[in-house]
Amino acid sequence: MEEKKFCSGIEDDRLHEECGVFGIYSYDGNEVASTIYYGLFALQHRGQESCGIAVCDTNAPKAKVDSYKGMGLVNEVFSSEALDKLKGNLGVGHVRYSTAGGSTRENAQPLVLHYIKGTLALAHNGNLINTPELREELARTGAIFQTTIDSEVVAYIIARERLKCGTVEEAIRLTMDKIKGAYSLIVMSPRKLVGARDPFGFKPLCIGKRDNEYIITSESCALDTVGAEFVRDVLPGEIVTIDKDGIHSDTSACLSGHKTGRCVFEYIYFARPDSVIDGISVYQSRLMAGKYLAIDHPVEADLVVGVPESGNAAALGYSMQSGIPYGTAFVKNSYVGRTFIKPGQKSRESSVRVKLNVLAEAVRGKRIIMIDDSIVRGTTSDRIITMLKEAGATEVHVRISSPPFLYECFFGTDVPERKQLIAYNHSIEEIRQILGADSLGYLELERLPQIAGGLSICMGCFTGTYPLNPPEEDIRGEFQE
Amino acid sequence: MEEKKFCSGIEDDRLHEECGVFGIYSYDGNEVASTIYYGLFALQHRGQESCGIAVCDTNAPKAKVDSYKGMGLVNEVFSSEALDKLKGNLGVGHVRYSTAGGSTRENAQPLVLHYIKGTLALAHNGNLINTPELREELARTGAIFQTTIDSEVVAYIIARERLKCGTVEEAIRLTMDKIKGAYSLIVMSPRKLVGARDPFGFKPLCIGKRDNEYIITSESCALDTVGAEFVRDVLPGEIVTIDKDGIHSDTSACLSGHKTGRCVFEYIYFARPDSVIDGISVYQSRLMAGKYLAIDHPVEADLVVGVPESGNAAALGYSMQSGIPYGTAFVKNSYVGRTFIKPGQKSRESSVRVKLNVLAEAVRGKRIIMIDDSIVRGTTSDRIITMLKEAGATEVHVRISSPPFLYECFFGTDVPERKQLIAYNHSIEEIRQILGADSLGYLELERLPQIAGGLSICMGCFTGTYPLNPPEEDIRGEFQE
Amino acid sequence: MEEKKFCSGIEDDRLHEECGVFGIYSYDGNEVASTIYYGLFALQHRGQESCGIAVCDTNAPKAKVDSYKGMGLVNEVFSSEALDKLKGNLGVGHVRYSTAGGSTRENAQPLVLHYIKGTLALAHNGNLINTPELREELARTGAIFQTTIDSEVVAYIIARERLKCGTVEEAIRLTMDKIKGAYSLIVMSPRKLVGARDPFGFKPLCIGKRDNEYIITSESCALDTVGAEFVRDVLPGEIVTIDKDGIHSDTSACLSGHKTGRCVFEYIYFARPDSVIDGISVYQSRLMAGKYLAIDHPVEADLVVGVPESGNAAALGYSMQSGIPYGTAFVKNSYVGRTFIKPGQKSRESSVRVKLNVLAEAVRGKRIIMIDDSIVRGTTSDRIITMLKEAGATEVHVRISSPPFLYECFFGTDVPERKQLIAYNHSIEEIRQILGADSLGYLELERLPQIAGGLSICMGCFTGTYPLNPPEEDIRGEFQE
Amino acid sequence: MEEKKFCSGIEDDRLHEECGVFGIYSYDGNEVASTIYYGLFALQHRGQESCGIAVCDTNAPKAKVDSYKGMGLVNEVFSSEALDKLKGNLGVGHVRYSTAGGSTRENAQPLVLHYIKGTLALAHNGNLINTPELREELARTGAIFQTTIDSEVVAYIIARERLKCGTVEEAIRLTMDKIKGAYSLIVMSPRKLVGARDPFGFKPLCIGKRDNEYIITSESCALDTVGAEFVRDVLPGEIVTIDKDGIHSDTSACLSGHKTGRCVFEYIYFARPDSVIDGISVYQSRLMAGKYLAIDHPVEADLVVGVPESGNAAALGYSMQSGIPYGTAFVKNSYVGRTFIKPGQKSRESSVRVKLNVLAEAVRGKRIIMIDDSIVRGTTSDRIITMLKEAGATEVHVRISSPPFLYECFFGTDVPERKQLIAYNHSIEEIRQILGADSLGYLELERLPQIAGGLSICMGCFTGTYPLNPPEEDIRGEFQE
Repeated sequence: MEEKKFCSGIEDDRLHEECGVFGIYSYDGNEVASTIYYGLFALQHRGQESCGIAVCDTNAPKAKVDSYKGMGLVNEVFSSEALDKLKGNLGVGHVRYSTAGGSTRENAQPLVLHYIKGTLALAHNGNLINTPELREELARTGAIFQTTIDSEVVAYIIARERLKCGTVEEAIRLTMDKIKGAYSLIVMSPRKLVGARDPFGFKPLCIGKRDNEYIITSESCALDTVGAEFVRDVLPGEIVTIDKDGIHSDTSACLSGHKTGRCVFEYIYFARPDSVIDGISVYQSRLMAGKYLAIDHPVEADLVVGVPESGNAAALGYSMQSGIPYGTAFVKNSYVGRTFIKPGQKSRESSVRVKLNVLAEAVRGKRIIMIDDSIVRGTTSDRIITMLKEAGATEVHVRISSPPFLYECFFGTDVPERKQLIAYNHSIEEIRQILGADSLGYLELERLPQIAGGLSICMGCFTGTYPLNPPEEDIRGEFQE
Repeated sequence: MEEKKFCSGIEDDRLHEECGVFGIYSYDGNEVASTIYYGLFALQHRGQESCGIAVCDTNAPKAKVDSYKGMGLVNEVFSSEALDKLKGNLGVGHVRYSTAGGSTRENAQPLVLHYIKGTLALAHNGNLINTPELREELARTGAIFQTTIDSEVVAYIIARERLKCGTVEEAIRLTMDKIKGAYSLIVMSPRKLVGARDPFGFKPLCIGKRDNEYIITSESCALDTVGAEFVRDVLPGEIVTIDKDGIHSDTSACLSGHKTGRCVFEYIYFARPDSVIDGISVYQSRLMAGKYLAIDHPVEADLVVGVPESGNAAALGYSMQSGIPYGTAFVKNSYVGRTFIKPGQKSRESSVRVKLNVLAEAVRGKRIIMIDDSIVRGTTSDRIITMLKEAGATEVHVRISSPPFLYECFFGTDVPERKQLIAYNHSIEEIRQILGADSLGYLELERLPQIAGGLSICMGCFTGTYPLNPPEEDIRGEFQE
Repeated sequence: MEEKKFCSGIEDDRLHEECGVFGIYSYDGNEVASTIYYGLFALQHRGQESCGIAVCDTNAPKAKVDSYKGMGLVNEVFSSEALDKLKGNLGVGHVRYSTAGGSTRENAQPLVLHYIKGTLALAHNGNLINTPELREELARTGAIFQTTIDSEVVAYIIARERLKCGTVEEAIRLTMDKIKGAYSLIVMSPRKLVGARDPFGFKPLCIGKRDNEYIITSESCALDTVGAEFVRDVLPGEIVTIDKDGIHSDTSACLSGHKTGRCVFEYIYFARPDSVIDGISVYQSRLMAGKYLAIDHPVEADLVVGVPESGNAAALGYSMQSGIPYGTAFVKNSYVGRTFIKPGQKSRESSVRVKLNVLAEAVRGKRIIMIDDSIVRGTTSDRIITMLKEAGATEVHVRISSPPFLYECFFGTDVPERKQLIAYNHSIEEIRQILGADSLGYLELERLPQIAGGLSICMGCFTGTYPLNPPEEDIRGEFQE
Repeated sequence: MEEKKFCSGIEDDRLHEECGVFGIYSYDGNEVASTIYYGLFALQHRGQESCGIAVCDTNAPKAKVDSYKGMGLVNEVFSSEALDKLKGNLGVGHVRYSTAGGSTRENAQPLVLHYIKGTLALAHNGNLINTPELREELARTGAIFQTTIDSEVVAYIIARERLKCGTVEEAIRLTMDKIKGAYSLIVMSPRKLVGARDPFGFKPLCIGKRDNEYIITSESCALDTVGAEFVRDVLPGEIVTIDKDGIHSDTSACLSGHKTGRCVFEYIYFARPDSVIDGISVYQSRLMAGKYLAIDHPVEADLVVGVPESGNAAALGYSMQSGIPYGTAFVKNSYVGRTFIKPGQKSRESSVRVKLNVLAEAVRGKRIIMIDDSIVRGTTSDRIITMLKEAGATEVHVRISSPPFLYECFFGTDVPERKQLIAYNHSIEEIRQILGADSLGYLELERLPQIAGGLSICMGCFTGTYPLNPPEEDIRGEFQE
């Protein structure tokens, strides 16, 4: 069956996050599959293409990992029957998004593998930049690859390093010396759960607790959903091991100083607003972006509105700062699912209109400030602006809560190639004209560290400067099927 | 496969609308199935249980009606292949919700039937109150029933009246003398489209136009979605016929004066906020409800928030009136679909928490005014309030944008039996205590006509007084399978 | 999903039976749904398009009929869950085949209907010849039709006659005066099971018993499958009522003398060989057809083979009579199911070859007598003969265990229109040449009554003379969607 | 959805083959996916659990392998859409059966893998006996395993050997020095197809040709089905390479002399009767088994019948030799599919009876010789014998066309553990009594080489002596999930 993908936002013109992870160890021996299910459900915005769960019973005499994976949303892939068969008090789950080429069931995670020391399950969020070299090096010594995902490469290296040392966590530590790039990784062996975050901390990873259970997951919203308490973030470069003796930390791979490369786009768009990442509330971060937009790009208007859902928080911030009332201008059709078809669509049954309608009563005769989180190709913003004007808005002032996209990302975000980026091809004034906006303002680059609470961040997609040097040529997708 | 139903809102503790209809006639001979698909999609909030489309080619030498129906959402039931097979420039579609007992494929609409004069397709929104009598009368003269829906009864009467007169629309006119209750009806014969609205106008019905196409549908938001212009509402009691000669109206069944019984709950909750019904904007109506709440139940607080999505507009109105800032307190998980399972749910992975999380950053240390559209059984409001308080809200003041539910509805809304209604069993102060709110205020009864723009409305579920006398005993479901 | 149909035989060039029925009443109050399931499974050869079961609990204070129907084979339509929901000790099931036009879910049976006296479920095998007149008469008095099946017409008449008399069986008796054609009918009211067979006995119907349970069904093989004993055939024209007081018979509609019109093709092809119909073993009947072929169309040869499966018994008969050894020449691929697709088929991956391969070792260098049950269009016989010759058969003598098809059938068999019948267009010698056979012999017309044990049979498709005069013009499919 | 498996025969008490393979190279650049589909369909009896196809376009500038795999029958897994996406003129397919534990999608074949030299697809029929050692050796040098199938081990070794030599076929030659056991293997690289058969020739493998296309497949019946000519069998120990330069052979791994270990059960039961394996017709082999049974275990009787389908050929042989007429005693319900459920089955709706009915007319009053191919556990034979006697057979003499099963198989057949084998626990006379037969005769051991045309065969399951020494302890399933 052909399946169409939809992003969680209004338009297809969005960037996509690549993954979310959720691991749990119940010391009381409780079944964890259903908790992982709820956790993944809370992380669904991080990946809607495939998902999977692997579990193990730490008290079983013989270690045995059961897993179930499939293409689709968490509630499409997992039936009650499928969950019931996943027995164990230790487990890890994964939600995945990928670019079209690699969208196959083979690439679903967690990756479950057997090696000389037993069985491992890996769930990975991020993108390595030296995968081709690692893959070639492994292949030269006889490795075979059945997927096109980084996790398989990581698994191979862990398996090989494991031969040289005593524990999985040591093997992961040695693996971190070899792999370069963005990774928030959960590895489950039949007796323990290991979480590792790359030294630059590109992707989020945090620790939670619920009674006698420890959790490692991508975002704190997943902790809230399962009723767990947030304990702390995993440090960039830290390895956290949860085994029968409790929780252990190895920070030997952490970089000195505070030099990190946290992805600022987690705050701007990827993460759920109710998550707190590295001490910074995503919601507050978006409010601040809106406030800075109001400071840097003020305009007289009657109403501030957000493009749902991701533009709302920044719109509220703009309103607070400017004193211009905040309101709602759009009704979003929440029944647009992954499999929504678009039969014989005429121009006026446009994809945008089907998903979004304007509240004419709210905008008629008003000067509108419309806040969106980003413009990638610019293919749908013009339609939304047209809809506002057709509904009677007298002016539409567009404010974007991020700087213009100018460069690609090598660390796990599917920014399209540069020539597709509207800001790469056009000046801001040109973009304004293309969109038909009355004014256009982007978040200033220097505001980014501020909205991230002063954390050391990666702004490569805006500046072209990355914490780690990207490969000479773009090799993404090289080994893709 | 067992399927679970979810309402569009946060909680299961919602009332449900029963149906939405969409009919179209293209004079240019364009295929209409895909337009009906988009129209139904825009009406999906009116019924998520089953849906269907019937079409006909007015230019074919021999009239032939093709139809396709199924259980599920519009984008679940209709594949591209299914739509491609529906050929015709005249068509009618339907989305349906029903109480559990009658949730069968047999009851899906449109109902397609053959009778002495040919073929008809019926799509019906509403509930008749004299169905049992009509059904018995028909059965006494040999009628057999294959469904439990009112449409079948209406179809029988039309078929019989048609024997006595010259046209379908005349037969419908005669039928209206026999059927009592709420109905917005679209009847398609192979050569024309007829829309009829009961004399009290319980349910909405309006006319739109797109180039050389006429549309009759439940809500104007469906017109916006397909890029059509709103022409006017069908009058209560009016029969509108669209045939090759254009659009005709028969208003002989309209009641004298302005005595109507429009369902006020369409404004409060059922309809989409971007619809305009009988000249009144649903959005404005909700804003006004919020304003009246602020006037009638003022309280000092720091933030006004709505329970998404339906509480948002009233919250904005409250904010406008009171001057207390409007904001967002909740993040809703938009991936909760119809088939969401709830495996081994512990108390803390509660249904509410999975669907809704509190933005702690937004509410911490604040006095919150929380606006919701109604309280039916009250089973989930207390959890939301608890979540707000756990997240740090110092006070939670609940305001409800409708009066307390005290009576059942006989005209198409599934209000549960009275003893399940929290307001039937408890005083407002008791309810406040049960919910754990710091204060509680309902919309005053006398505000209802005001938010409906002075229209003559049905407020039976609040007052027990209905435009039409309900049957002596509740016979709903009598003939249900 | 588009589904392709396959007949049970090798080739698509087969006639199709239209239905099978199975009703049961358990006096001990045992659940009957699973027994009906097994019974329908044994009758699957009579209809592979759709199937359904309706059940009722005779001991429930309030009569309630539960039903489940769907498109597909019995084991595709019924899951364990679906069967578990069908609770009752009284029930009726149906398997259906139909011509393409009416292959819709609406037409699946049993038809469940509500009428003035309660609820009925009807399952019908056969074809009425006065349906159009009946339908028009009903329509003239206000009937509406939701399907295109005869059962709906029969149901209407029963419902109307029921108003004039005291019991369902009386109403059925009155109905039999009005309906003309072939019917073996099972009607379930919430308290009884009524079986009726048309006065000519076109279609089979028999009674079985298992402990405290009575069964009415199309073929005795279904009794064997559920471990029931055969009691007797229902007489042509008989109405059998099974209620709490036992089994009753009304033979007032039986024709005097032995003038019946049993379909001889039940013996030749439709029925399962392990069934005994009206006292005649289907298997013996086929053996005899083979023997007569050996007597009337002898030829020198080395091996007699049947085209699987239906040609095997006649081949054995031919062998017995002629003394020429019987053997196997073909291997049939039993995995060809309903949904077998035929992608980009080249001539040599022909449909026939995929389903049937020749056992070269068995036929090489031999003169073969190949027995098939009939030739309709003749589109595949030539390929089978070519395959035999390519495999080394030196001669292929074709013997057909029925006379040439020359006329259409009005009583429930989908004989294609005359101009598609090879025997209508060609002499036997021409057919022999077209097929590439070395000789060709059909069963002689006068043998038909003999293979049917002297019963009075309908041979209309061979002679054009029918027990009942068919309608002036072929009105089949008139009211079809 | 839980799916039940059924063997192709009547009873569940059957042995199962493990796999079938089909590879093709079209020099004319024709698409091969549909031909592979038909080929796999003809091999469906060799494995009904999962199947898959991998294809490649040899003329594409960049080698790219597309594959599609799934659980289920060939016509369930492959839709037209799925086949259409498999573009290429070179391809390999696989059908698989496995013991319950390893019945997962991960284990479906062909296995597609990327290694240092590019991409390979492997399809494997057979079972290695040194997998654990090989797996451990590989794991010690860092290999990770994602499946539990031998093919993955073979792939690893090929990948490693490939580093030491110039071509895939050389790597396969080196691999054959390391792997021990039964294997008929097809390996596809993006430019060639390589077939290899183990030196003992346990499993069949043959070469076919169709115009400008070469085919390698398990059985010749697959060649017939796609309209190809049989060229020759692959020799035990031979490697056949088909590349742009034509077909090449490497026989350096063939054993000297004629010492082979062809599985005799291919002739007795596994293979389709229309296949010819290593020059011996499977059909003739079964005829001979029947003849030898008549010679070695004669009995006076009236009719010889086979238990369908696999007993029929031997029954015919018995009849030929004995002069006792051959006939049919059973009607098999061909609609029993993979997903047949058995709801609330009572003893008399037994699984056997549902699938098989006795032709009472054929057996009544007769002394029957019933031929079956084997008795494994003996759980259903007694029921069939009882059914024959209930239908009136006066005597039932059972003849089995293989010797008693006494030992397990290590080379790819799922013989249950010894204690479940009826012949391991009972003498022949005891078995006769258990079954309720009037006499019982097995094929004599010394007849086995004769029915295999004098080929050197493996009879390990009857004698406990194998061509290759099996592992000390039964390690099957060790690494199973």
